[in-house]
Amino acid sequence: MTTKRASATKTSIRRGTNLPRMGDFNESVVLDAIRRHKAGLSRVELAEATGLSAQTVSNITRRLLDQGVARESGKQSTGSGKPRTLLQVTPGARYAIGVHLDPAVITYVLLDLLGTVVARRSEPTPRGVHTEALLAGMAASVGALVEDSGVDQERVLGLGIAAPGPVDPVAGLVIDPPELPGWGSVPLRERLEADTGFPALLDKDVVAAAVAERWSGAATDSRNFLFFYLGTGSGMGLVVDDTVLRGSSGNVGEVGGLGAACSSRALVEEAIELGALGHEFTPTDPQDAQRSLEHLARIAAKGEPRAAGIIDRWGVRIGRGVTAAATLLDSDTIVFGGPLWPLLAPRLLPLIEPMVAESPFVKPVHATTVTTTAIGEDVAAVGAACLVLDRTLSAQPRSLLLA
Amino acid sequence: MTTKRASATKTSIRRGTNLPRMGDFNESVVLDAIRRHKAGLSRVELAEATGLSAQTVSNITRRLLDQGVARESGKQSTGSGKPRTLLQVTPGARYAIGVHLDPAVITYVLLDLLGTVVARRSEPTPRGVHTEALLAGMAASVGALVEDSGVDQERVLGLGIAAPGPVDPVAGLVIDPPELPGWGSVPLRERLEADTGFPALLDKDVVAAAVAERWSGAATDSRNFLFFYLGTGSGMGLVVDDTVLRGSSGNVGEVGGLGAACSSRALVEEAIELGALGHEFTPTDPQDAQRSLEHLARIAAKGEPRAAGIIDRWGVRIGRGVTAAATLLDSDTIVFGGPLWPLLAPRLLPLIEPMVAESPFVKPVHATTVTTTAIGEDVAAVGAACLVLDRTLSAQPRSLLLA
Repeated sequence: MTTKRASATKTSIRRGTNLPRMGDFNESVVLDAIRRHKAGLSRVELAEATGLSAQTVSNITRRLLDQGVARESGKQSTGSGKPRTLLQVTPGARYAIGVHLDPAVITYVLLDLLGTVVARRSEPTPRGVHTEALLAGMAASVGALVEDSGVDQERVLGLGIAAPGPVDPVAGLVIDPPELPGWGSVPLRERLEADTGFPALLDKDVVAAAVAERWSGAATDSRNFLFFYLGTGSGMGLVVDDTVLRGSSGNVGEVGGLGAACSSRALVEEAIELGALGHEFTPTDPQDAQRSLEHLARIAAKGEPRAAGIIDRWGVRIGRGVTAAATLLDSDTIVFGGPLWPLLAPRLLPLIEPMVAESPFVKPVHATTVTTTAIGEDVAAVGAACLVLDRTLSAQPRSLLLA
Repeated sequence: MTTKRASATKTSIRRGTNLPRMGDFNESVVLDAIRRHKAGLSRVELAEATGLSAQTVSNITRRLLDQGVARESGKQSTGSGKPRTLLQVTPGARYAIGVHLDPAVITYVLLDLLGTVVARRSEPTPRGVHTEALLAGMAASVGALVEDSGVDQERVLGLGIAAPGPVDPVAGLVIDPPELPGWGSVPLRERLEADTGFPALLDKDVVAAAVAERWSGAATDSRNFLFFYLGTGSGMGLVVDDTVLRGSSGNVGEVGGLGAACSSRALVEEAIELGALGHEFTPTDPQDAQRSLEHLARIAAKGEPRAAGIIDRWGVRIGRGVTAAATLLDSDTIVFGGPLWPLLAPRLLPLIEPMVAESPFVKPVHATTVTTTAIGEDVAAVGAACLVLDRTLSAQPRSLLLA
């Protein structure tokens, strides 16, 4: 009789690792190091920076050169001894596609290995269209993006999708999104994989933004930062102990409980109610809401008191929210971004910065930097592509574990 | 001339790994798996659960048996074929000491490999005493704890210290704690290491509590939980994606920004002000505050309306705070514990549970379980010892990275 021992496979057991995993990981570590030093690194510097032996570094760089992912890029004088050959990433060796599904607009980008956007297109998000037409349209746009760029399909690693929450990253779909009627039932990732031929990943937009920020490192080198994203909705991407958090269902970053959530729709509704915007402005459709909000931001900048009041009150809620989250997570940096941020930053940044600096909760231990993403308004689309780069090329200790 | 290339060693570069690291990691994985199955696991089950090859499992279990850390514990019938030998952890093979420095009381525990408390002592936290006397007293208590337990010193892996925040885990000290005058200048970890001869670690009390909960797995198997700790102060330990978070300075878990912070001193002050407690109760000293709060909880339980109101209002703030944090971090479980929790749970649990269940932020994606730690009032001291067990024996992917 077989003893019942179901608990033997419970999920809390860590998986082990083995030699092939180790080899892949060390290759990622070396590639990551080269990528982060655009001026190039010598083999000696690589061994120093990664802790790997000279022999291991030499084997790995040989493989990277053979694959065309890295290239030799000149000599570095060392004073005494013979000059060292520098290694750099070949930007065009690999590419990744990013798709940002926003309720107002769908943005498509193609990134090279250094995270540079080499092609971009965007289209208004279709409304009231059949699922099949939606998917066919997206697949066609992905195809056109790659086609128009002239990039060899074979060099495209895959396709990342950033979507508003709640998402189900495992099933690869969006769950009943209030601003995206009809999309809730679409097995988005699976269908785009099938229709485009590229392997696909899906994550929440704010998670993708945090991945982009960590991948690029342009705005911050911090290992512990929050990314506050302002778009059709708002939320936070979280990086703690140098890791992008995802949580139990991939839905990290909801800021409703912190009082910092706000949609462009809610802001425009308030503005109409208070008379800051006339009734010709409507919040019914995400695209209308975005246009109305742009107008609100413009009149607030000119000093219209009701418009300024609406934005400032939201700014105070955001300031409290990021302070609470930064304290809870012991973050040393807060990055702001998303399509609405450039519009609102001139008013919100001078308001939020002192709130964070003067918080009694954060102060005693360390300062907290408040900054703006260097990636621009497409940060979620860039982040979607970075999901692929990060999964495929980044040195994640978790990737060492056996599947 | 040497080119200046300081950026080559910037911290954002991941370290590589090597064979010895891999061997240690896989050994931890196997030990972890055996530990989590008190009834024992066969080698075949170990290979299945960890993904390691039969040969690797066989080599590792041989080493663990040789070290005395594991033992063979009977046969498992498999129906057909020969019965499989089961492996179990030898609880008394290794031990760890935990010290919880609380403003009211210092607790010392000795844990075996299975996390069972085999010895315990506690002493009121000395006040107005010289640093040297403080340290000498703590070192003597650690010595007495081990001595009285009869455990062989050689089997003690080390000593963990849990302290109220803010802490500096790198320097190993507490930073200007308001309730612990004089302690801020004590290089606690270094001095206890020198005076006891055991290697020491220091972490924040709420971080230690989360480590204890994850190590024991008694209250939850969740990979994404919050530990809300109620003691002389309150705070949260955070586990996301199966990892205990520490943050940029080791000070994760401050709940002031969430409105959920409260000290026993503040509750007692409010109770005296509202007349729920007479002026014979004082909050001046953490020990007095604790005794006064116990009285407040007792009269609230009997229905004294002002006392009940004070505790319920705090409960609502805690409920809002844990809901906000669980939503932000996508946690599926909230664990409550700490010395004040048994006192307040009968009143707070029925209040907080529905707040979490009915939260509009958490609901759409998954349910959130609210539960009580199974470790008891000494969870921070047990957690302090678990810091050592976790660091030494747990399978952490980060431990694979070269130093």
